[in-house]
Amino acid sequence: MKEFVYAAVKEEFDQWKARGLSLNMARGKPSLEQLELSRGLFTALDFDDCMDDGVDARNYGELAGMPSARKYWAELLDIHPDQCFVGGSSSLNMMYDFIAKAWSNGLLHSEKPWSQQPGIKFLCPVPGYDRHFRITQSFGIELIPVKTTQAGPDMDQVERLAADPLVKGIWCVPKYSNPDGNIYSDETIRRFAALKPAAPDFVVVWDNAYCVHEIRGDFVPFPDILAMCAQEGSPDLVVEFASSSKITFPGAGMSVMAASAANIEYLCQLASAQMISGDKVNQLRQVKFLKDKAHTLNLMKKHGELLRVRFDAFLKELDEEIKPLDIARWTNPQGGYFISLYTRPGCARRTVELCREAGLVMTDAGAAYPYGNDPEDSHIRIAPSFPPLEDVELAAKLFCVCLKLAALEKMGG
Amino acid sequence: MKEFVYAAVKEEFDQWKARGLSLNMARGKPSLEQLELSRGLFTALDFDDCMDDGVDARNYGELAGMPSARKYWAELLDIHPDQCFVGGSSSLNMMYDFIAKAWSNGLLHSEKPWSQQPGIKFLCPVPGYDRHFRITQSFGIELIPVKTTQAGPDMDQVERLAADPLVKGIWCVPKYSNPDGNIYSDETIRRFAALKPAAPDFVVVWDNAYCVHEIRGDFVPFPDILAMCAQEGSPDLVVEFASSSKITFPGAGMSVMAASAANIEYLCQLASAQMISGDKVNQLRQVKFLKDKAHTLNLMKKHGELLRVRFDAFLKELDEEIKPLDIARWTNPQGGYFISLYTRPGCARRTVELCREAGLVMTDAGAAYPYGNDPEDSHIRIAPSFPPLEDVELAAKLFCVCLKLAALEKMGG
Repeated sequence: MKEFVYAAVKEEFDQWKARGLSLNMARGKPSLEQLELSRGLFTALDFDDCMDDGVDARNYGELAGMPSARKYWAELLDIHPDQCFVGGSSSLNMMYDFIAKAWSNGLLHSEKPWSQQPGIKFLCPVPGYDRHFRITQSFGIELIPVKTTQAGPDMDQVERLAADPLVKGIWCVPKYSNPDGNIYSDETIRRFAALKPAAPDFVVVWDNAYCVHEIRGDFVPFPDILAMCAQEGSPDLVVEFASSSKITFPGAGMSVMAASAANIEYLCQLASAQMISGDKVNQLRQVKFLKDKAHTLNLMKKHGELLRVRFDAFLKELDEEIKPLDIARWTNPQGGYFISLYTRPGCARRTVELCREAGLVMTDAGAAYPYGNDPEDSHIRIAPSFPPLEDVELAAKLFCVCLKLAALEKMGG
Repeated sequence: MKEFVYAAVKEEFDQWKARGLSLNMARGKPSLEQLELSRGLFTALDFDDCMDDGVDARNYGELAGMPSARKYWAELLDIHPDQCFVGGSSSLNMMYDFIAKAWSNGLLHSEKPWSQQPGIKFLCPVPGYDRHFRITQSFGIELIPVKTTQAGPDMDQVERLAADPLVKGIWCVPKYSNPDGNIYSDETIRRFAALKPAAPDFVVVWDNAYCVHEIRGDFVPFPDILAMCAQEGSPDLVVEFASSSKITFPGAGMSVMAASAANIEYLCQLASAQMISGDKVNQLRQVKFLKDKAHTLNLMKKHGELLRVRFDAFLKELDEEIKPLDIARWTNPQGGYFISLYTRPGCARRTVELCREAGLVMTDAGAAYPYGNDPEDSHIRIAPSFPPLEDVELAAKLFCVCLKLAALEKMGG
């Protein structure tokens, strides 16, 4: 390691910059090697094999999705097929649609559509997923940050804020949360199920994006939040989402919305004005390839191995270069797609700026906070999944140099 | 032909009823033989052939769709690829989304979102497509029926109604309109392009659902409405939609939205809060199979042949059984998916009811009118595309019996 003084680090930075690299760690994209794992999807479905429980995948109908696709997700999420609405290729789109319907028509227990209620708000655990926040923001809903710990969102704060009838819901990623990689504790999940919000149409959006997405170790089971809500007398409080985007192909998987039978019935009625069904050929193709939970977990092991080497490469560099300096702390997640790194206050934006200057695109600093506003300017989301391993190694080295330089600048050079 | 008296026709009806048939002509679904035409789609795309102009169909990105898909639609619609946004598997869903965004955010020239403007209205040429009407109805927008002729919507009425600033748009199917099968005349299209509505955000929704869907005869070219609008100084007035649902597989094709560059840019900005992209693997698979316009038109010829025999079977029965009685008139369309039949006033609902009683499901009478309200109770939409030919023949015979019986009942038995 070079000496931790401005001149030496600046010189090192200039050398990196002179290399004219072009690296990208901005988004949680699977690598080409991960895509290879689903090569078989392309030949998994034959024209003559498209009937499924009396439904022809190749023709109109069946709003809630192919029967076998509903069964597949029911097994994965440990619920009943009737609780599953299987849609198009994107769960993000499905969540947007869900909020859009709250906006135009209201949810099951709404007194009126959200568009007719001025001043409504949504809770955003921070750091969180920028695309979640952006959905609610795009409707002009006010975003309220909520602190998170390793156990998930601060439930004292959530319970306090949910007492405001203008607060209509919360974004959650309960397993390997984006970006911190935490798994909500049993206590957190229990308190979510027992939540008694003031708004009758408050919704806990339960984005189970990484439900089977271990990087290391065995599959970690998760409780059925829908059953827990029902036991607490609030069966319609939570709506769960998942997709096979990061199981097969990003943006070309199948999405699922899981909810109480009453919620599914209500949302199907609204959706019947919107569509005839999602792409059932794709749904059936995905199911033929993924088969069932056991087969899927086996595939996810392979994804995990490819991710682990990239995560480890980045973490090794952080351990060697940054840990001795005490200028940042970071997560070492067991699953999901991100490393969260916290610089000293006031260094995140500058670090990302220096990276970009030297040819490494990172997620914008602050992106994990509502309105892109990280009050500490300290959080950086690292997405090491996509580049080839040698590029991850390069990027990690460059990142450490930029982080050091930003820290030194902050300390006064 | 049996004698046209109540007792004889009733007896014939009872014999049909006793057969316990189960036939369905309710929706414009392609037949199994039509699905066979796209068998090759299942093997049209290889895992190793997914790069397209630098974009990997198998990973995240490219909001407006695969470059070759945008080119494909641009050729079909005779416009520029930049004017095409290629999305998911359903143009119906895309139209719903479009109205939903007008509702939540407003369109390019909106003063405020439609949800914040009480009392807005939408023009519905009648008879028309029930699913169009239902989209606007689901937002609580008032539906205003507009007369149609063989030349398309009554443009005098359209121009008069568009002078009301609360009237925000009109649903159009310019080629082989659903259900009458008319092609809008050049004069009608010219007047649409020259329309000067009072609302700055009035939109002509141009659902070119049957743009290449001839049943008989050669492909009928259609003018580029977007260019015509631009020439008239209203480039953003029309938004066009199409899909390959009835070219390859219903509900599993690719959809396209075509509009001015300014509209596409505005709508992309809104869509960026909603999705990363549509299913690009499916888009690329469709393009590899359909290739280009010439190849697509060749495929559509084969669709047309399969449709024609079904249409002819139904029309033959109408000609033989009904024409001599002068109790109905009907269309003989050159393309699209429907025959429109007009009974004497007050007989449509009863005819459809009798059909159902005897085991033949037709589209609900009145479905082609806003709120399902056909003031004359005279229109029936016939969709002969799906059943095997022998079932179409059976259904046609049964339908004629029911139509006669309803007419006789109306005449006083």
